[in-house]
Formats: sequence, C-alpha cells, structure tokens
Amino acid sequence: MTYVAPVNDMVETIRWAAGFDQAVAEGVYGDLSIDLVAAVLEEAGRFAGERLAPLNRVGDETGAKWADGAVTTPPGWKETYADWTAAGWNALPAPEEWGGQGLPAVVQAACSEMWNAANMAFALAPLLSAGAVEALLAHGSDELKRIYLPRLVSGEWTGTMNLTEPQAGSDLAALRARAVPDGDGAYRITGQKIFITYGEHDMTDNIVHLVLARLPDAPPGTRGISLFLVPKFIPDADGRPGRRNDVRCASIERKLGIHGSPTCVMVYGDQGGATGWLVGEENRGLNCMFTMMNAARLAVGLQGVAIADRAYQQARAYAGERRQGRAPGAPAGEMSPIIRHPNVQRKLLAMKALAAAARVICYRTAAALDRAHRAATPEERARGAAHASLLTPVAKAWSTDMGVKAASIGVQVHGGMGFIEETGAAQYLRDARIAPIYEGTNGIQAIDLVTRKLPMNGGKVVEAAIAAMRQTVTRAASAGVPGLGAAAARLRDAAESLDRATAFMLQTLAGDRPDTALAVAAPYLRLFGVAEGLDGLVNIALAAGKAMAGGDSNPAHAGRIAVARFFADNIAPEAQALETIVLGGGEAVLGGAEAALAG
Amino acid sequence: MTYVAPVNDMVETIRWAAGFDQAVAEGVYGDLSIDLVAAVLEEAGRFAGERLAPLNRVGDETGAKWADGAVTTPPGWKETYADWTAAGWNALPAPEEWGGQGLPAVVQAACSEMWNAANMAFALAPLLSAGAVEALLAHGSDELKRIYLPRLVSGEWTGTMNLTEPQAGSDLAALRARAVPDGDGAYRITGQKIFITYGEHDMTDNIVHLVLARLPDAPPGTRGISLFLVPKFIPDADGRPGRRNDVRCASIERKLGIHGSPTCVMVYGDQGGATGWLVGEENRGLNCMFTMMNAARLAVGLQGVAIADRAYQQARAYAGERRQGRAPGAPAGEMSPIIRHPNVQRKLLAMKALAAAARVICYRTAAALDRAHRAATPEERARGAAHASLLTPVAKAWSTDMGVKAASIGVQVHGGMGFIEETGAAQYLRDARIAPIYEGTNGIQAIDLVTRKLPMNGGKVVEAAIAAMRQTVTRAASAGVPGLGAAAARLRDAAESLDRATAFMLQTLAGDRPDTALAVAAPYLRLFGVAEGLDGLVNIALAAGKAMAGGDSNPAHAGRIAVARFFADNIAPEAQALETIVLGGGEAVLGGAEAALAG
Repeated sequence: MTYVAPVNDMVETIRWAAGFDQAVAEGVYGDLSIDLVAAVLEEAGRFAGERLAPLNRVGDETGAKWADGAVTTPPGWKETYADWTAAGWNALPAPEEWGGQGLPAVVQAACSEMWNAANMAFALAPLLSAGAVEALLAHGSDELKRIYLPRLVSGEWTGTMNLTEPQAGSDLAALRARAVPDGDGAYRITGQKIFITYGEHDMTDNIVHLVLARLPDAPPGTRGISLFLVPKFIPDADGRPGRRNDVRCASIERKLGIHGSPTCVMVYGDQGGATGWLVGEENRGLNCMFTMMNAARLAVGLQGVAIADRAYQQARAYAGERRQGRAPGAPAGEMSPIIRHPNVQRKLLAMKALAAAARVICYRTAAALDRAHRAATPEERARGAAHASLLTPVAKAWSTDMGVKAASIGVQVHGGMGFIEETGAAQYLRDARIAPIYEGTNGIQAIDLVTRKLPMNGGKVVEAAIAAMRQTVTRAASAGVPGLGAAAARLRDAAESLDRATAFMLQTLAGDRPDTALAVAAPYLRLFGVAEGLDGLVNIALAAGKAMAGGDSNPAHAGRIAVARFFADNIAPEAQALETIVLGGGEAVLGGAEAALAG
Repeated sequence: MTYVAPVNDMVETIRWAAGFDQAVAEGVYGDLSIDLVAAVLEEAGRFAGERLAPLNRVGDETGAKWADGAVTTPPGWKETYADWTAAGWNALPAPEEWGGQGLPAVVQAACSEMWNAANMAFALAPLLSAGAVEALLAHGSDELKRIYLPRLVSGEWTGTMNLTEPQAGSDLAALRARAVPDGDGAYRITGQKIFITYGEHDMTDNIVHLVLARLPDAPPGTRGISLFLVPKFIPDADGRPGRRNDVRCASIERKLGIHGSPTCVMVYGDQGGATGWLVGEENRGLNCMFTMMNAARLAVGLQGVAIADRAYQQARAYAGERRQGRAPGAPAGEMSPIIRHPNVQRKLLAMKALAAAARVICYRTAAALDRAHRAATPEERARGAAHASLLTPVAKAWSTDMGVKAASIGVQVHGGMGFIEETGAAQYLRDARIAPIYEGTNGIQAIDLVTRKLPMNGGKVVEAAIAAMRQTVTRAASAGVPGLGAAAARLRDAAESLDRATAFMLQTLAGDRPDTALAVAAPYLRLFGVAEGLDGLVNIALAAGKAMAGGDSNPAHAGRIAVARFFADNIAPEAQALETIVLGGGEAVLGGAEAALAG
C-alpha cells in the first residue's frame, strides 16, 4: 500500500483554513501564488509517494543497527536521503541567503506532512536538522552560521537536539552535562544524553549536535543552562570535516515503533571532553532551545496529521476491497465491500475527519508563523507570533493524540488482519505512539497552553481565536451550504464551551488553587483542538459550498462538506462534555488522588 | 514489575456491583460465602503474581515458535501450564460431575482477570478451552462428553475454536470448510482455518479443535453450518490419544502483540480428510458456536479489564519512583515523584477508574449468567439470561476499548521510557490491541447490542437495566456519602441520556431507515458502558460510605469513593456528548460517506 499525497485537500486547507488567500491579499507572501504552492506540493507528493513510502516497511522490519559505535540505517535509506537533499527538499524553508528556497512555513508544513506520512522514521532526520537551522539562524554567531548553516540547509549534514539525560526529561532543570571553556573560545563538553534521535547514522558525512550543558559557574536550575554546538567531525575553516570529536553513540534503543530512526545514547567527553561552541549567550540555552522546540513541536504535530492520513489511506483501500456481510440495500447473495457498512463508514469518516482537523490546526499554526516573520507591520508580526505561540501546544498535542487514535481505528478497520504485522496497519499505530511523548509530552503541552499561552496579553490572544470562531459561525449560518447540516450550530456550541472553559481556567490560575487548572489542562487542550479544528473544517466547507454554487462540479467539494459535517455531528459534541469536565473535574483529581492511588 | 491481584477491589465489586450479597440472600449461590470467594481469589492472585506474571516478558520477547508444523511455547510455559492445571485452576467453573469445582461464573471472572493481567498470551489457552467445555456441555453427545470433557475440564487437553477462513471473518455465511459423513458416524473434514489461537502447541498431549464446516447437502449461508469436534490425536475408547489426525498447523502469524500465544493457520484434511464428530445437530453449528462465543466474549472483555489494571499497576509504580519537576506545594529545590503532579494524577486516576468500571460491567455480566443457571425459578433464570445477553456485547466491547485506552495512557505516563520495549509498558498496549478485534469485532458487538439485544422482550430488558440505574441514583442522593461529590447527579444524567438514546435506537430500528441506527451503534454502546460502569462504581462507593459511617477505618474505602467520583466528574460527562452523537450523528455518516470516502 503506497501513499498518495492529498495535494488538493492540502491546498484547500492552506487557502481557507490557514488563510493563504487573505494573507496574499495583505501582501504577507509577496508574489507567491497558490498555483506555485500547488506545483511544489505536487512535486513533493511525487517524491514522498514514489521514493519514501516504499522504504517505510523495510525501515520498520530491518530497523537501524548499532555496532561498535556506528549506526547503519536501513537498506536504501542513505541513497534516498542523498537524492532527497539533492532535489532541494531539505532546503525548502530556509532563507535564500543560506542556500534555502525561502518558501513559507505553511508550504513546509504540507511537505513535512508528506515526508512523515510516507515514512515517519526517515522524516525525523530532516525534522531535527530543521530545528538546528532555526537555532543557528536565531542565535548562532556569524562564524558558526558561515560554517554550519549552508550544510545543514542543504542537508549535507544533519542536526540533532541533545536535551534529555536519564534524570532530566520533562524537567530540564535537572541537567548535569558540563561545559568548560578551553580558553580558546571553545568549550569542553562532558556528559551523557539519551533519546537522541539520529544522534549517529551513516547518511551524511557529519552530524551537528546541539547540546544543553552547564558552565562551571552556572546558577542551578534552568537559568544555568547553555547551548553548545558539537560536531561529530570538527570542520576546518572551509567547513571540511576533519578530526573526530570526542562524542560517541554508546547504544540505540529497541523501541515500539519508528524502528528506522536510531534513538541514541550519546556520550560526550569520555576522552577528556568534546569540543563545542557556544550558541547564543551563556546561561540562555533554554531560550535557544525553545526556538528549536517550537518549530519541532509543530513538526511533531504534523507527524500526527501525517500518520492519521496514511492510516486512513490504507484502511480506506482495505475497506474498499475486503468483502464481508451484506450491506443495507446490497443485492442478496453477495458480500459487500466493508466500506458499504455504516459502522465501517463511521470509522473511516472519523479517521479522515480527525486527519483533516489536525491538518487545519497545524497549517494554521504555520501560517501564523509566516505572519510573524513576513507581515508588513510590527503589530501584525507580533499578532502572528502570539497566535502561533497559542496554537503550537494544541497543534502538537491534539494532532498527535488524534494520530494515535486514527491509527488505532485503522487497525480496527482491518479486523484480524490489522493485528498481523505484514499488513502494515499496526506499524502506523506503533510509529504514531511516540508523537504524544517526544518534544515535550502532551501533558507538558497542556500545561504550557494553560499556564503560559492563555494569559498572554491579558487573555487577548485566546479571545481573538474565539472571536474568529464566532465570525465563522456567523458566516456559516448565513451561507446555508447544502449538506453542512447543523455544523454552524455545533461550532457555536464548541466555541462557547471553549469561551466558558477559558474564563474558568484564567480565573482558576489567578486564584488560590491554580493546581485545579493543571488537573484539567488536558481536557481543556482537547476542547481547544475540537473547536479550532471544526472552525477550519467549516471554513473549508464554506469555500467548497461557494465553489459548488458557482458551478464548480469537482466532487471533492461535496466530500469536504461531508467531512466538516461528520466532525460537527460526531466529534464536536465532545466539546460540551469537555467543558463539563474542565469546569467540574479538577477537584475529583486533587481531592481523590491520594486515597485512590494509595499503595 | 510484577502483578498484584487487587483482591479486595474484586471482592467489593462482586459484592456491591455484581450483587453477590443480594444473590446469596436469594439463595442463588447455595452455601457459598463471600469469605470462601475471597480465599479462592487470594490463592489465585498468588499463582498469577508469582508464577504467571514473571513469564509475561519472555513470552513477548521469545514468542511462540513454529518449525515443521510443531509449535514451541516460550521457555517455562509448558511447566507452568502443568502446575496451573494441577492446582485445579482450569477446572474452577466446570460442573463437579466432570471434575470441575462448580464455582460460579463471577468467581471465574475474577480469576480470569488475574490470569490475563498476569500473562494475557498464556491465559488465552485456557480461555479457549473453557469455550470448548461450554459447547460440549450444552451440545455434545454423551460419548463425546465422556471422552473429552474430563480432560478439557482438568486442562490435560486444550480446546480451540475454528471459525475464521480467509474469506470468512465477521461473516460466517461465507464459510467453505467441508464435512462429509464417513458412514461410520464420523465425518471427514477438509478446509483451511486462520487465526486459530493455540491451534498447535507443546503444552498438552492433545488438542481438541471445534471446527465449523458445511455438510455436502447443507443450505447456503449461516443455516448450513455445522460444528465438529476434531482431535489432534484420535483417542481410543478409554480416552488415550492414539493416531495422529489429518490436521496440521501450516504456519503461525507474526503479530503486534500476544507473541507467546500461537495464532495458527490450520489445514484440515490434506491427506484425505480429518476425522471429526458432529457436535449438536446438523446445520445448527452457529447456534453451538454462539454458546462458546458468548462465554468467550465475556472472557475477552475481562482481558480488557485485566490489561487496564496491569498497565495501571505498572504506571502507578513508575510514577511513584520517577522524579521530575516540582509539584504544587512541594519543597523548593527538590524534584517530586511525578505522581504528585495533577496532570499525572489525572492519567493514573483515569486508568484506575476505567479498569474499575470495566470490571463492574464484566463481573455483573458473569453474575447475570450465574442467575441464569442457578436462580430458583424459571422466571429468575430467564431474567438472568436476558440480562447477561444484554450486557455481553457491552462487557466485550467497552472493556476492551478501555483496555487499549488505559494501556496507551500507561505508555504516556512513562514518557520516553514508555516507548522503549524493555520497560514493558508498550507490551500492554500491543497485547491489549487484539481484544477489540477478536471474538467478534467491537463493531459487531455494537450491532449485536443494538439490533438483537435492545429489542429483546419488547425493550423490557434494557428498560430494567436503566431502572436499576435510577434506583442507584435515588439511593446515592439520599445516602449523601462524603467525597462522592455530584456522582449521583452524573449518574442520573448518564442514565437519562441512555434512556433517550435507547428510545431513539428502538424507534429508528423499527422505522424506514434502520441503517441510521447502525451508523451510531458504536457511540450508543459506549454510552451504555459509561452509564453501566458508573452505576456499579457508585454502588461500590455507597457500600464504602456505609462502612466508613459504621466506623470501618480501612483507607481503601475512601479510595473507592474517590474512583467513583473521578469517573463521575471526568469520564461520565461523555454521556451527554454520546447522546447528542447517537441522536444526530447518523445522517452525517450515511449521507456523507460516499462523497467523503470517494477514491
């Protein structure tokens, strides 16, 4: 089962849920046209489907192999990575100044979805490199930029993020890795890092590690963490890899999924210290890391979208072929394809709707980042940045939760065959399961949303998001698109639930029991995702309705309206329950945990 | 991480959610006392924790191995199976007449939960044997009973269920396996069966296959299926295994989970025909099969309970040890165990509450079966049978869905460690994922509930279940148990949602668009599970409140009240959303599927 990038759905999402046409009208995207975007996505889709997807299975079955500190990627991966970078795909979003193509984040988001849908374990390598590029662009010295950026942008080298240590996962304050100035402008780095994605591999000549460590005189906690660049091979002045640095991969993990992606234990400095260079200011490493993390969080959210869509495509194809039972209305005496059974249709619609809604949220986050970087006025840029900031935890957590959910439904659609590894459906579930965990667990995302993002600008940022939903309700109610059913009313209900839940959260956070808000942060985030996703789907459906009313006979429009309606009638009602849980569930957690979880 | 059977929670569930004390008072259980039940469960818990649980990991890692038609179970399994049967555990629920201990289904349910929690792949072998015992008891000839029952009851031999063929999974009408009378009272069986659990293994001297096949003159469809008993070795008149029958295991599947349990492709009759004997009447095989399936469905539901509890126990232990961040109120400068963080508490409480609610539903189903077999009057027995019939699909589907959910939350509680196979959390998720699929997919269960069970006795059976919930509401409202919060009100809301949703379903099924009901059968079943589970938890909490009011200082009582409250405030609000979906979601499925799922 291959992967066919849903380019048209992506384009519609970019235009109507992520506001591309509007942004073009405002001059945010210069002379970029939607036709050019579509052409880029067509090309990307071809590479993803033809080159990356066929390597997904071998990646799972063979996996990355470790021997004597070296890591071998699965058969065909190295060559394909070379072709992929040669075709310029790694350079897509980076500034032209550094060899990039300067395409907007929203285009990169769609491409990133494709790479991950085709082959999530493969796509993780460039996902991490992109984070390193972001960090160097924002915080690197001119010299570091000059040597490393062109190679990281082209993909000639890959990048890594080294945060986690055995005692320091979600809590970076507990980091112990050390960096000592060598008097020569560089530092000696020592320590052990775990869960380092593509920390070692054979696809490129060099690997650029970005490593969090403490200086000797650093204050304790997160205010004493600095970021260092530690190359596997130390480049000369022209950037040619030279001497091997004192860093090695001690082992790789045996994991539930993403077997093709090596998850490394990295040891720094057991020969006396790895040579590294400071990125950004001393003791401000966490700040630099957040630059990488925010981009990476959106990218991980896109993995959720990707795996949901890939799982959908496979389940859809299986359901179209597998015959069991007689569907309502089918001729007697013959078995129907299971896609004709209402309960299977429900499952496939749920998968498609969840993927579509998660896509909405992620692309919208990317478009907000574009606005933050490209809008004409500082006010507009600040507004974009704040919007992206608000949506990032939702994009990461909601999309990855839905990725797992969709992949699990996909297994179910396959029946017994879904549990057999050769079918491939189970791999999506295994792969999907990491996304709610890494780049900040979804629990951390919910806390970030509630404690840092909601209070931004005195609550004005989240208010604006809810106001936009209300505008959609108004437009949907007056548009009267046939087939959209009660979607406008469901969106209104979801938005009002979100509004009341938001007020409760802000009040509770400011009150004397702020931990009550933490206890219901997860359902609050889920409520946010439901409302935001439905808003985007309704926007897409409105555009589809307008096109149909204008005589456009493309049947995909009716499909998009049906997806919005399904989400509205079969998923969005969750919003009312989530509001009830947010408003009334916290006390049962705080008051009950000790007794219920005893011993 | 070992497994500790929650014997006290099980006993409380048996007493207050499954109505044991009431049934004892009515004479259903003869002279069986709750103290004896507790003593049996203590013993079973010891075996499960000390002997079965330690073999769970090796089962996953080594798996069952196939070579030249023979299947080797993982190291230690054969010996442990022998000890387990020697201790009498396999014989627990069977009639004393056949060497069983004649203990009630509700006791067997608790023990079955333990075996599965300790080692689900191992426990599948006796789970299938129990189905074979049920089928022979109900439908076997005296001669078949005489030879096979004592050995299946003791566990000296195991049993299998052979339904599925490549073209016939959920749809048994498509079966092709054939049986031809050999003129000697026996039959020659030919055909291929897939997904046969423990179809071949090395733990016993013989294996008794129950096989669905068609007679030469059989009508097409499900009315032409007969059930045959086909032993691996044909026993002589004294039951000693003799000649090898013409049945072999062609291969075993590579699966997502339950690696220790061989899932076999079985080939019958490629040397001319396997010798088999008819069980029950000709062409009534489906009827016999349902005898096995109903028992097996409850047993699979218990796997959901089991894996949820096992995953909870492991996550709870990890969260008590793993330190990250500072919890609200914790001293500055030290990391707190993550179990102190409200968002982690929420996850653990959800796992515990889901396991407890699923336990309620499964034990209640078992207790209804006990009533069906043991009650004094035919009316009471019929009432019990109807109640068990109603609850069985809910027990199977809701519990297994919650098993997957709890196991997935368990992975999340572990953070990055949850994705590493050596931690063990991922195995629970992989193992759990089969339960919503086999013994009738959860989609099939929802259709069974809606189309066959709701209309029973003109809707009176489901009405009685809802009436019982309303009685619980009344008792809870007047009891005023401290700490139970708004649980009574939440149960009332859930019961009323269920009532309205039930009326809608019955009406829709009787109307001109019955497929609308099929399209929302899954959320209807989920709603049923939420209401039924909460009802049981509130009943347990009321008993706990009464005990505390009476001076019982056991802290577990407060824990049970807290679990009920958590479920009421943080899970049960789903009921309102599910009602909305049931009442309004079907049209979006039926009307939208064609457009949305096109190509």
